[in-house]
Amino acid sequence: MKVQKPKGTVDILPDQSGSWEKVEQILRDFFKQANYREIRTPSFENYEVFSRSSGETSDVVEKEMYDFNDKGGRHIALRPEGTAGVVRAYVEDKLYAPEVVKPLNVYYIESTFRYERPQAGRQREFHQIGIESFGSDNPLADVETIVLAHDLLAKLGVKNYELHLNTLGNEEVRQNYHDALVNYFEPLRDQLSDDSKRRLEKNPLRILDSKDEQDQQFLDDAPKIIDYLNDEAKENFDKILAILDQLGIKYVIDNDLVRGLDYYTGVIFEFMVEDKSIWQSKSTILGGGRYNHLVEEFDGPATPAVGFGIGEERLMLVLQKQNPALFTDEGIDFFITNIGEGTEIKTVEIARALRKQGFKVQYDVDQKKLKAQFKKADRVHAKYVITLGEKEVENETLNIKRLQDGKTLDLKFSDIENMQENIAKLED
Amino acid sequence: MKVQKPKGTVDILPDQSGSWEKVEQILRDFFKQANYREIRTPSFENYEVFSRSSGETSDVVEKEMYDFNDKGGRHIALRPEGTAGVVRAYVEDKLYAPEVVKPLNVYYIESTFRYERPQAGRQREFHQIGIESFGSDNPLADVETIVLAHDLLAKLGVKNYELHLNTLGNEEVRQNYHDALVNYFEPLRDQLSDDSKRRLEKNPLRILDSKDEQDQQFLDDAPKIIDYLNDEAKENFDKILAILDQLGIKYVIDNDLVRGLDYYTGVIFEFMVEDKSIWQSKSTILGGGRYNHLVEEFDGPATPAVGFGIGEERLMLVLQKQNPALFTDEGIDFFITNIGEGTEIKTVEIARALRKQGFKVQYDVDQKKLKAQFKKADRVHAKYVITLGEKEVENETLNIKRLQDGKTLDLKFSDIENMQENIAKLED
Repeated sequence: MKVQKPKGTVDILPDQSGSWEKVEQILRDFFKQANYREIRTPSFENYEVFSRSSGETSDVVEKEMYDFNDKGGRHIALRPEGTAGVVRAYVEDKLYAPEVVKPLNVYYIESTFRYERPQAGRQREFHQIGIESFGSDNPLADVETIVLAHDLLAKLGVKNYELHLNTLGNEEVRQNYHDALVNYFEPLRDQLSDDSKRRLEKNPLRILDSKDEQDQQFLDDAPKIIDYLNDEAKENFDKILAILDQLGIKYVIDNDLVRGLDYYTGVIFEFMVEDKSIWQSKSTILGGGRYNHLVEEFDGPATPAVGFGIGEERLMLVLQKQNPALFTDEGIDFFITNIGEGTEIKTVEIARALRKQGFKVQYDVDQKKLKAQFKKADRVHAKYVITLGEKEVENETLNIKRLQDGKTLDLKFSDIENMQENIAKLED
Repeated sequence: MKVQKPKGTVDILPDQSGSWEKVEQILRDFFKQANYREIRTPSFENYEVFSRSSGETSDVVEKEMYDFNDKGGRHIALRPEGTAGVVRAYVEDKLYAPEVVKPLNVYYIESTFRYERPQAGRQREFHQIGIESFGSDNPLADVETIVLAHDLLAKLGVKNYELHLNTLGNEEVRQNYHDALVNYFEPLRDQLSDDSKRRLEKNPLRILDSKDEQDQQFLDDAPKIIDYLNDEAKENFDKILAILDQLGIKYVIDNDLVRGLDYYTGVIFEFMVEDKSIWQSKSTILGGGRYNHLVEEFDGPATPAVGFGIGEERLMLVLQKQNPALFTDEGIDFFITNIGEGTEIKTVEIARALRKQGFKVQYDVDQKKLKAQFKKADRVHAKYVITLGEKEVENETLNIKRLQDGKTLDLKFSDIENMQENIAKLED
């Protein structure tokens, strides 16, 4: 019986990986340009890291956690998202110390895991990319995060994206809104789904995420947080909107936006893409917001924070449609065909010399018929083929052929050291 | 109580991650220059993938596997090394099909996991880098793999490395050698460790890996495989050595080299580093070899293959000593200090304009005292500080200061579009 990959996982194969690498390289360069630095936390954490941060009543914790008991009896979970591990590290590794410049700006690109019934677009192992900024509560920090998200999507060539904004206010607002939700849903309790009955006790905000049809009918008329903002929360939100306005960054205020995790406070946002060739309706590809209490949840000092996360699989799906250039195979510069006694050495030497000059070079390792080798050169999209036989080795010459038009050029071995210049002769 | 990272795991923090990124970028570019492409397999596999490939009697499987039962009752293991998952993918995803160019050359850079008692240099989550080449049995394919390993270490700036070579021959050789080992160890059975008694039944080759003191005394006099090579195996090995000789790549024949995994056939090799500032004795940082039967073990078609793997943690340890340049912080180009009404917008605009030109730019998001902002600019190793106050916004000018020597330059807002040229004025 053949051994198969585990349910809900995928292989990213050599003919697909190039585009993932390109996208991640663009992201890394982009983050570094804004002085965000990478942080790498373990692939798994103690279960409590995620139950504390995402909230016991979130779908992630209630239904989707990839958790197990390790051989030492520890309750371990593969990380379902990126923020919790980063916050755990922030506290445990004392990144709040004054020696560390604030805000501390970090990014991550990592595998994430959920134990869900696999379906289109839902995998048990997937990839998340995100940034977090710790230490500033200034609206300019929120703006920085939102603008970076915006510019990142633009840079990648994502089209038709729309920025949705909402705010969860501050402590007082959340408490008032919580009470308003309870007042609204309590009389409807018997008509709610079982999940939402439970949420009503523990965290009524989560009812607003419900995808259950039973609940849906009541959501439209539920209280909106925007009506419960106090002066401070309103001023903060207005300041963010004012800067975005002046920067010419378009957005829509989305009262239905609540995000699926408990840890958000203040501004929250999602970038939604409309592309009928992929999805019937607008779909979120990037989401984030402010979370000013999470560091304290982990017993760290009070630390304002803001960040966003991107689902890489969704991003790749969009880019495949919207920026196909990222998915083209650029091939290699030289393929070295070689056949006959003593040609191996020279082949390897030439390949090493050309790679040192920055060229992409492959040579044939099977030394079968020349025709088969040329065919292979074509299939790996080589620009030029160098042919090395016994005669060439003896005469210290080599023949270069440009595959695109069949033009050839004869060079001496000594010409190899300066290939850029010599190959240019083919361009005449 | 503070939540801590799981036992045996580490965080790679923002002040360390830059060197990991640099090293991985060098590796990616290097592999791509040789037309090796990335493959990404899941972080976990069905347990059987690893027990089949590494061998039931290997230490990896017997003692070190990070395995657990998932919620669906599947026996799952986090991958202990990179090759098995790649071979599983090669078979399951039909990469042996004629439409896929052979040899199929792939690389991976990934997290790997072992459930061991944590100790210096042994982590439960660590990182492996490797390449695999499927489809050629020609000695030139072995040479390619060895030469790539060699050139890679050189490119990274690793010093004092020594290439150790051995061969496990072919089927017939392995059978004869197996019998010789049994003949040698059988009379010593009572004096062997319990582990090795078991190995004697199942796989006597593994006794040679034993670190048990009880076994050590017998290893020196054990039969050496080099004495059991038949003509075919000898010719193959000699051919590889001859090419390496002619390429001027130094090596030592190491009869004690057996590698810790069952899947090797043919040539095997290790690169060992001698650096007394790190280790008392020579230590392996890269190892690999030929494994011609593993694809068949996974019920794929007979497919010769060769590859190598590097432990990234060990590599980083060596590079930290031997190539400190990879560990320097390059800082950023511009830090924008800003204070006063209406300066935020211009600050963000200038940052975006400069990043578009390729500069690394951070701006202050807290808008506290200018002195504190300048201090921050210095701490993030900014080359230049741009100062924006209300006066500057009004006059559409900005002041640039080079931190290194305090030299300043006044520019108009319109000069920003062409910063490379304008900043050069400071160089006079």
